[in-house]
Parts: sequence; structure tokens; C-alpha cells
Amino acid sequence: MGELVERLRQGLPAGSVAVDGDVLAAYKHDMAGFCAAGEPAVLVFPESVEQVQHVMRTASELRVPVVPQGARTGLSGGANAVDGCVLLSLTKMDRILAVDPVERIAVVQPGVVNAELSRAAGEVGLAYPPDPSSWESCTIGGNIGTGAGGLCCVKYGVTSEYVLGLEVVLADGRLLRTGRRTAKGVAGYDLTRLLVGSEGTLGVVVEAVVALRPAPEPALVLAAEFDSVDAAGAAVCEVMARGFVPSLMELMDATTVRAVNEMAQMGLPESTRALLLVAFDGPDRRERVAAVAQVCAEAGATGVVPAEDRAESELLMQARRLSLPAMERMGTTMIDDVAVPRARLAQMLNGVAEIADRHRLTIGVVSHAGDGNTHPVVIFDAKDEDETERARRSFDEIMALGLELGGTVTGEHGIGLLKREWLARELGPVGLELQRQIKGVFDPLGILNPGKTF
Amino acid sequence: MGELVERLRQGLPAGSVAVDGDVLAAYKHDMAGFCAAGEPAVLVFPESVEQVQHVMRTASELRVPVVPQGARTGLSGGANAVDGCVLLSLTKMDRILAVDPVERIAVVQPGVVNAELSRAAGEVGLAYPPDPSSWESCTIGGNIGTGAGGLCCVKYGVTSEYVLGLEVVLADGRLLRTGRRTAKGVAGYDLTRLLVGSEGTLGVVVEAVVALRPAPEPALVLAAEFDSVDAAGAAVCEVMARGFVPSLMELMDATTVRAVNEMAQMGLPESTRALLLVAFDGPDRRERVAAVAQVCAEAGATGVVPAEDRAESELLMQARRLSLPAMERMGTTMIDDVAVPRARLAQMLNGVAEIADRHRLTIGVVSHAGDGNTHPVVIFDAKDEDETERARRSFDEIMALGLELGGTVTGEHGIGLLKREWLARELGPVGLELQRQIKGVFDPLGILNPGKTF
Repeated sequence: MGELVERLRQGLPAGSVAVDGDVLAAYKHDMAGFCAAGEPAVLVFPESVEQVQHVMRTASELRVPVVPQGARTGLSGGANAVDGCVLLSLTKMDRILAVDPVERIAVVQPGVVNAELSRAAGEVGLAYPPDPSSWESCTIGGNIGTGAGGLCCVKYGVTSEYVLGLEVVLADGRLLRTGRRTAKGVAGYDLTRLLVGSEGTLGVVVEAVVALRPAPEPALVLAAEFDSVDAAGAAVCEVMARGFVPSLMELMDATTVRAVNEMAQMGLPESTRALLLVAFDGPDRRERVAAVAQVCAEAGATGVVPAEDRAESELLMQARRLSLPAMERMGTTMIDDVAVPRARLAQMLNGVAEIADRHRLTIGVVSHAGDGNTHPVVIFDAKDEDETERARRSFDEIMALGLELGGTVTGEHGIGLLKREWLARELGPVGLELQRQIKGVFDPLGILNPGKTF
Repeated sequence: MGELVERLRQGLPAGSVAVDGDVLAAYKHDMAGFCAAGEPAVLVFPESVEQVQHVMRTASELRVPVVPQGARTGLSGGANAVDGCVLLSLTKMDRILAVDPVERIAVVQPGVVNAELSRAAGEVGLAYPPDPSSWESCTIGGNIGTGAGGLCCVKYGVTSEYVLGLEVVLADGRLLRTGRRTAKGVAGYDLTRLLVGSEGTLGVVVEAVVALRPAPEPALVLAAEFDSVDAAGAAVCEVMARGFVPSLMELMDATTVRAVNEMAQMGLPESTRALLLVAFDGPDRRERVAAVAQVCAEAGATGVVPAEDRAESELLMQARRLSLPAMERMGTTMIDDVAVPRARLAQMLNGVAEIADRHRLTIGVVSHAGDGNTHPVVIFDAKDEDETERARRSFDEIMALGLELGGTVTGEHGIGLLKREWLARELGPVGLELQRQIKGVFDPLGILNPGKTF
């Protein structure tokens, strides 16, 4: 490994190459559970496109695997080290190169933190919608790698809708430019979209042109309590069927509501089996909130609380924001990411409850209900081997259930290490073979994030 | 060719295989000018996925090229025959298999006409936004092939934003399923988006899951006249910079305005150098139209006409709708499709006027100004060889100008035959090589629409 480090140092600034064991250990995994991490050989922090090209050229020549990393907030092990690899952290390439209100685009380096881009856009009245829970720390490069989503997607879509063009360093160090800076463009195959969500297995994103939107008005929120998951699911379907366009539609199950109640004394009734939050941010938001309150009441809501203003809206959103922290207090958590057709949402939640019962586990479900995207959170005692095994099995059964209901094993977190076997099941043999061949086109030596996705 | 036709007949219904010379001649090209068409061997109209598989298997075994076709309304020669090919018309696979208001999706066969899908969606209060000018005749399969756009894209995006999943028959007859029926999903590489805009060179789309949206309210339109292209361009930029979200923003140049005036006596002042149409379809559309009227006046509009209602809006839109027919009365037309950054729109239009002058030609420009997507229409006498040659040269110079201004040679019409050399210029060698290799993965024998795109 002496040669690798020596050669990397030749093209990188002093202090940008780390080999210290403690440092490497700190960088060797992301936030996924149930995922092994290998032993990296070296960690580098390039500061320019040329330096990333140097890293990739060196790695290609020496046939060393490279694992690109953002803020390592991912939940599928996609950024975990593999043995002997170069950990390629893009966090020092963190400049916003342009924010253009006429073209409604930003040009950013991959290490820009999602919240930083949002703030920069906000200064000129614009917004960068994709808002994963980790938005205060995750990077745009990481978001592009995983195809990240968030709470806003029901109205504003996911990361892939916002990436217009990319600069990408290929496995052999060549620089690829994809896409455009214009609002529209269909010249050639859409390599931009092929790269979004490719989890660092096809190339290293070193610059991105992303679309921005005019910042919406602060949303007005409605909370509705239901005494059954079926009633809540029916309300979700009814809201969508009637043509509403909420800017957020989140559903918390009984376990989640209880956890939040215990942590923050929100005073939600014990009988609540599901709590639905629906928001609108258009000019007619007040009328829309009132209309959806009516829809929820008709669907059997046991309580409906429409916010009167921004402050009340924030208060209602607290319940959702505290969901994950509240469940993390209860044990080790493992968060799944199964999306199903909206009409199957209640079935999905009931199925997860059945899986939890059968495995004698606590599983809370928060979901981006408007997208049918559920996040079942399996809670277990990691020191208890048997319980850990049951947690692992329930995690798998949740994905099987999602596929059975016509869904996907990942709505927004990606495949990484965690769901490799499941990708094959979801894609089938023809799709899998084509995907492997595309991987071969971009990375014939197989050095880019090997063992991830496939 | 006897063997080819014989074998095709074995797996296709009687009457689905045409070899008559007149029929073949009628199907051998789309609506592009300046594009040669080869001599097809046979024309087939499969009615099922299995029949398309039979066609592709047969073509693979006999190494015969296949050209997939929709309604042949394309403008880049992408559907033109190549010598000895099978013309594979998907027009008989024209069933809408599902329209689901809860999931907000439709499942369609490729031969469904865009307007038919729009009407079916409209029956349940939904809309399929992409609206190319040929929407009354073009097919969803063709729209997917070219990545079609339209007037609505400034607010609602292009075809690729609406395709969630595909069934595709590969060159060797295997069936590929991509994407999903759920609102979100990031399992594996985005082959769906790779296939959208691939102009039949990677596979034959036999089924699509497309996203629908709640139908908007009828739009309210504003027309603004300017005595210079620069002032009109400045107004476009100002509208976008101030955060408006118009549902349509179209710009017609002086030549277009004159042509429409001559055809329909619209009574537009002779001094008009540019006519801008801006529409809003949100609940606050009346206020928005008034506000943009103000923005246009400040930008130097010589006349501003805000519609009071739907009927007046329709009347104003007539000018735009008649643009192409009005220019077609003036000679043979050749429509270009260059998109530039919005801030370069005026430069683009002035540059096109300069090109027209230099080549002693009439070139009218209509543009989806909100997207920076211009359609310069070169008008010439096809019987005059010299003029035709000047038209051809001006067409190329328009694309060169677009690239110079940071744009793309095709915003929504595709590459086809017409712009193959230009694709190479726009992509550069690295991108082009990767695109060719991806083509090789999907179509190793090179039988799918050969000679198109590359």
C-alpha cells in the first residue's frame, strides 16, 4: 500500500491524504445498520476536479477500489469502505459556483450541504426542494448518488427531477459532461438521469447543475387522528383521488405516535392508531386545508386539527420531526424504505404490524403517505443476538411484503450493501443483466464502489 | 427478402404484414425535411407484446434492421426507413389499459394518441401534460422515443418527467421491465429515463406507466407587444427572476407575427417586433396576469392585453396556434429546435435574424420562451436549388449559434437523422463514446433503428 499512498500524495495537497487508523475507522461506514464495512487503505480529500482525476487515474493504474463519500448519512451502506480501498471524500469540494434566478439553476460542487444550497437559493427567493431528513448535514453529491427524496416529494418530486447536468470523473480519470444548463434538452441518451441514483458505481460526480424553483409560501398544516390504519389509508386515497396537491402528506402509525407522546408529552389520545399530517403551500392553502379536514372527517377521523397560522403549523409538524429521535430512544433502530401504490398503504402498515407481532418486536412506521413511501423502523436490542436476528428477518419480510403489494424495496434510500439481493428480485434477470453490462461500460475494471448495488 | 416476410407472417395476424410498394412508400418517412429515407422491405403492425417479440426475434436471426414507428409526426427523421428494414408500426397497439386517479397514473400501449390519453385522463379530472403541437395525432410511444415537450413544459415539464416505468422488447426479443408503478423508487440504474428520448435505438416500448396530474383550471392569458426582441427577452427574464410560475410563456418574432396577420387578419400593429404570450392556471391567475402585465409594461411593452376570461384567452392563443400554418403558406418550412439559457433568448433571436438576412431567407421564430426553447422556421422554395442549399446552411448555422450561446441543438424534437453530426459536437468525445457503448449493450447486432442518433 506504500506505493498507492505515495502516488496519491503526488497529486494532492498536503493534509489531504489520511492513513491514520482512527481517522480511517471514523470514515469507514455510513449510517446503515446490518452492513459490514471493510478496511480502507487510505482516505483522500481532493479539492478540485483535477485532483479527483488524479485519484481515479492512480486507482485505475493500481487496480485499487475507490469508494466515493459525501457526508456518510446514507442508510444503505453505499458509502461503506471495502477492503484495501481509497475512501474518496468529496466534502472539501463544497463551493456553490452559481445561483441564477433567471435560469433557476444552481451550479454546485458535490460536497455542498443540502441546507447550504437551500439557504443560498432562499436568498434570491428560490428553493431547492429535495429535503431528506439529514438535510442539515447531507451533501448534494450524496443526494445525487442515492437519488434522495424527502418530505416535499409528494408535490415537488425527488432529486432526479432537479439534476439537469453533471460533470463526472470516470473510473479511468476521464472527465464526462452530461446534460445541459438549459431548461430543456434531449440530445442523446439521458446519462444524467442514469448517473443519479447510481451510488458511486458509475463515476464520481464533481459538479452538478441543479434546477431551483420559486420558494413556496410557508405551508399550512392539518393534523387528523384516526382510530384505524385503514381509515387513515382511505383518507390518503380520497385526498389524492379528489385532485388535491398537498405539499406534504405524512402518516405516523400508533407505535410512532406513542413514542413521540412519551418523549415530548404531545398529549395525543391513546386511542390514536394513525396520525395524518397534510400541508398546502399554494395561495388557496387555507381553503384546501379546510376541504381536506372535511375529507378526513368523512373518512372517519376521530379528531381534525387545522392550523390557523405558521406557528401552529410548525407545532403540528413537531410530531413528525420527533418521530425518529423518539424511536431511537427505545433501542437500536433499523430504518426501511419500501414504497407501495397509495391504495396499498393501509395493507402495508397492517402487514408490518403483523410482522412485528410475529417476531415479538417493536416496529414503528412513518411514511411519506402521499408517495406511498413507508419507513418502517425496526427497534431492537443490538446486544441480544436472538432479537437482532429477528430484527434482520423482519426487515427482509417488510421488503418482501412491499414487492408483493406491487412496490419497490427502496423509494429514496438506495440499494447500497443492504438490499443487493433484493435488487435482483425486484429487477428480474433481464434488467439485472443490462444493469451489470452498463456498469461494465463505465467501469470495466470494477474499481468504482465494488460490491455495492449488485 | 422472401424468407423475412414469410417468417414474419408466421407470428403475425393476417393483414398485419404489408409489402405493397405504395403502402411502404407512404410509411417510409416522418415529417422532417432534409432527411433521406431508405427503401423498407416490409411494414408490420403487431397487436401484442408477443408479436413485437416475434418481429424482433426474426429480425435478430436474419440480421435485418428494424425501424420502430409511431404516428410519424417526428421532425428529425428518427422514424425514416433504412434500406431493407422492417418498419415496425406500433399504431395498432393503442389501448389505454388503466387510468387510476388514486395513484395518478395511466398504463398505456405505445400507439395511444396523446390527445386520447389526455381525454381519458380528463374524464377523471386528471391531465397528461406533455402537449407537442402534433398532440391530436402523435402517439405516446413516439413521445417517449423523442422525449417530446410542448407548450406546457415551462410549468409542467417534458415527457421524461412523466414516464415512471416501461415494458420494452429488446433487440433480441427479450422483454425488459423498467421502473415502477409507485410514485417513488430508486432501485438500480434509471433505465426508464435512459430509454426516454432514445429514438427507438435501444428497444421497442410496448407499454408505459405514465404519471398524471390533477387537471389545472383553464388558463388566463396575457399578450404583450414589444418593438424590439431585446425588450421582449428582458421581459421573459424579469418574469422568471421575480418568481412567477406561468403555465405557458411563448414568444413570436416579427416574421411570425406578420405571417399570422396576413393569414388571419389579427390586426396586430405593423411595428410589433415580438409578441409575448404568458398564461397562468393557478387559483391566483387573475392577480398573476395583472402583475406580469405590469412587468411587461416596465420592460417596455408597447401594448399589453390581459384576457378577462377563457374566451379572450383562447382568442389570444390563436395567434400562437396559427404560427406554423401561417408560415407553411409561405413556402417549404424546416423547423429547428434549439434551446438556450433564457438570458440568451434575445441574442438567439437577433442572431437568427442576422442569419436570415445573410442568406436572403425568411426565418420566423416561435419559441417556448419560458424554457429558452426556440423553433426557428426556415422558409424556402424547395424547387430553387440555391435557396434550398442556403436554407440548409442557415439551419446548421442556427444550431452552431445555439451551442455558442450555451444551448443544445435539440430541446424536444430529438436527433434522428437530421442532427447526427451535431450530437457529436454537443456531447464531445467522452460522452459520445459512452453513448455508443450503451447502444452496444442493448443492441449488439446494431439492428435497432441503425444510423439514427449516431
